[in-house]
Amino acid sequence: MTKSNWLINGTNSAISPGDRGLAYGDGVFESMAVIDGRIRFFSKHLERLFGGCRRLLIEPPDEDKIRQDLEKLIAPQSRGVAKLIVTRGAGGRGYRVEPGTKTTRLVTIHPWPDYPAGHYSEGISVRICKTRLAENPLLAGIKHLNRLEQVMARTEWEDDRIAEGLMLDVSGRVVCGTMTNLFSVQGDTLMTPGLGRCGVAGIMRSAVMELAAGDGIEVMETDVSPEDLLGSDEIFVTNAIAGIWPVNQLDGRRFDSRGLTRQLMQRLAELRHE
Amino acid sequence: MTKSNWLINGTNSAISPGDRGLAYGDGVFESMAVIDGRIRFFSKHLERLFGGCRRLLIEPPDEDKIRQDLEKLIAPQSRGVAKLIVTRGAGGRGYRVEPGTKTTRLVTIHPWPDYPAGHYSEGISVRICKTRLAENPLLAGIKHLNRLEQVMARTEWEDDRIAEGLMLDVSGRVVCGTMTNLFSVQGDTLMTPGLGRCGVAGIMRSAVMELAAGDGIEVMETDVSPEDLLGSDEIFVTNAIAGIWPVNQLDGRRFDSRGLTRQLMQRLAELRHE
Repeated sequence: MTKSNWLINGTNSAISPGDRGLAYGDGVFESMAVIDGRIRFFSKHLERLFGGCRRLLIEPPDEDKIRQDLEKLIAPQSRGVAKLIVTRGAGGRGYRVEPGTKTTRLVTIHPWPDYPAGHYSEGISVRICKTRLAENPLLAGIKHLNRLEQVMARTEWEDDRIAEGLMLDVSGRVVCGTMTNLFSVQGDTLMTPGLGRCGVAGIMRSAVMELAAGDGIEVMETDVSPEDLLGSDEIFVTNAIAGIWPVNQLDGRRFDSRGLTRQLMQRLAELRHE
Repeated sequence: MTKSNWLINGTNSAISPGDRGLAYGDGVFESMAVIDGRIRFFSKHLERLFGGCRRLLIEPPDEDKIRQDLEKLIAPQSRGVAKLIVTRGAGGRGYRVEPGTKTTRLVTIHPWPDYPAGHYSEGISVRICKTRLAENPLLAGIKHLNRLEQVMARTEWEDDRIAEGLMLDVSGRVVCGTMTNLFSVQGDTLMTPGLGRCGVAGIMRSAVMELAAGDGIEVMETDVSPEDLLGSDEIFVTNAIAGIWPVNQLDGRRFDSRGLTRQLMQRLAELRHE
C-alpha cells in the first residue's frame, strides 16, 4: 500500500501499536463502492457507521473530516473501493477505555475488484460453510471489526469456481454469506434472514429491500432454515461492492434465479446513486 | 508509547494500514508478567499462542525471533507486562487470505499495574455484567483479537471499588471475568467453568489447576450457574498478571474466601517461575 492511498486521522501517520482496533477489534468499518468518483449509498454508509459507534459507545468521528479524507484520496471519475475504519483509538493495555481516548479514523482506497461478468449474467456457485456464526444480540447487525468467523469461513475453500460461502448460526439458521447478505425468492415473496442475533445489516441489503418494496414486492425478514433455502425459487446475494449476484448453484443443486432477481438487478442499475 | 518499548517484526517499523489484525481482529495475543526481568510461565504462553495459531490456521511466528524481541525490550531485573500480538499479516481487502501473507509479530512492554495490596489481603468486589458472551466452539478458549464483548462488558461500570465484572454466556452460564478466569470452591472441590463454548483458556487458570491437583484437591471443569456461584464457599479470579484475587463481595453478597483460596495463593507465591 503506497502513501497515496491511505490516510490515518487525515495524515500519512502510522497506526499506533496500542490502537484498540488492533488490540481488540474495537471499532467499525465500511467498504464503499466508488463509481465515477463518487461513493454509492454514502449517506447509508455513514448512517450505519455512526449507528455502530453509538451502539459500541465509540466517540463518533467528525463527518466533515471523513468527507475531506475521501475527497483527498478519490480521483475524479475513478472507480474503486473506499474502506473506512473507525476504532475507539489508542490506549494502554486492558479492556477499560481510558478517559480522553480519541477515535482513530483510517481511510484506504483499493482497486475495483474485477468480478467475472458471468457472476451477473449466469450467476454464481455457492457452498454452505462449516464455520458457524455465534449469536449475540449486543453485536448483531453492526459492521464491527470482530470478523474471525468470516475469516475462518473463507479459509474453507480455494476453488475459484465457488464465489461465496453461506453461513449458518450456531442454531442452524442460514444467515448470510461470508461477505454478502442473502435473499430467497419464494413465490411472489422476497425473504431475507433477520439479523437480530448475528450478521451485518448490509447497505445493499437495505437498498434491495427498498427497491423491492417500491415495486410492490412483499419483503419478509425472517428465520431461514437450510430446507427453506433449498426450497427457494430464486436465490441471490448482495453487498455494497458487488451489487446483486444471482445464485445458480448451491452445493450442487441448481437454481434458476432469473425472474425477480433480474428485475431487482435492473432496478439497481437504474438507480442513480446519491 | 515511545520507540523503546515496542517492536514490530523485530524493528521499529509501523503497523500496515492493511494489517488483518486491525481489519478483522485476525490474530492472537498474550499478556505476560515480567518479574525480575523474566517472563512468568513463558513456555505456557508460547504453547497457547502456537495452539491459537494452529486453530486459526495462522502461520506461526518464529519462536527464536519472539525470544530475541523480548530480550531486546526487557531490561534485566525489571518488572512489567510484555504483550505479544501475532496477526495473520497485512493483505488486500477481503476475508480471503492472499497467498504469501506473512505473519505480523508485535511486542510491547507496559508498566506493571500497581493493583492495591488489598486486592490480595482483603479480596475484591465483583459484579455480574449484562454483556453476554456468544457461544462458538470454533473460537472458544483461544486468546484471539475479537474482544468486543469484553470491551463492552468493561464499559458497564466506572466505580473503582469494583475490580472485576463476571460474564455469563448467552445461555446464562457463568464463564469468566472480563479479564480473568473464575474459580468456585464448593466444600473440598475446586470448580471452574468449562471453556468449550466461549472464554479464554487462561495461563494462570491452568497453573492454579495444576497447583490444586498437586495438593490433592479435586478440580472440576463444569457448567456453573449464577446460583451455583452464589452457593460457593469461596470464590476467586485469576489472570497471568494479577495472579489470584479472592472475591469478598459479589453484587452485595459477602464471601469469606480465605481457606483454599489462600492456600493456592501461597502455593503460587512459592512457585519458582521457569
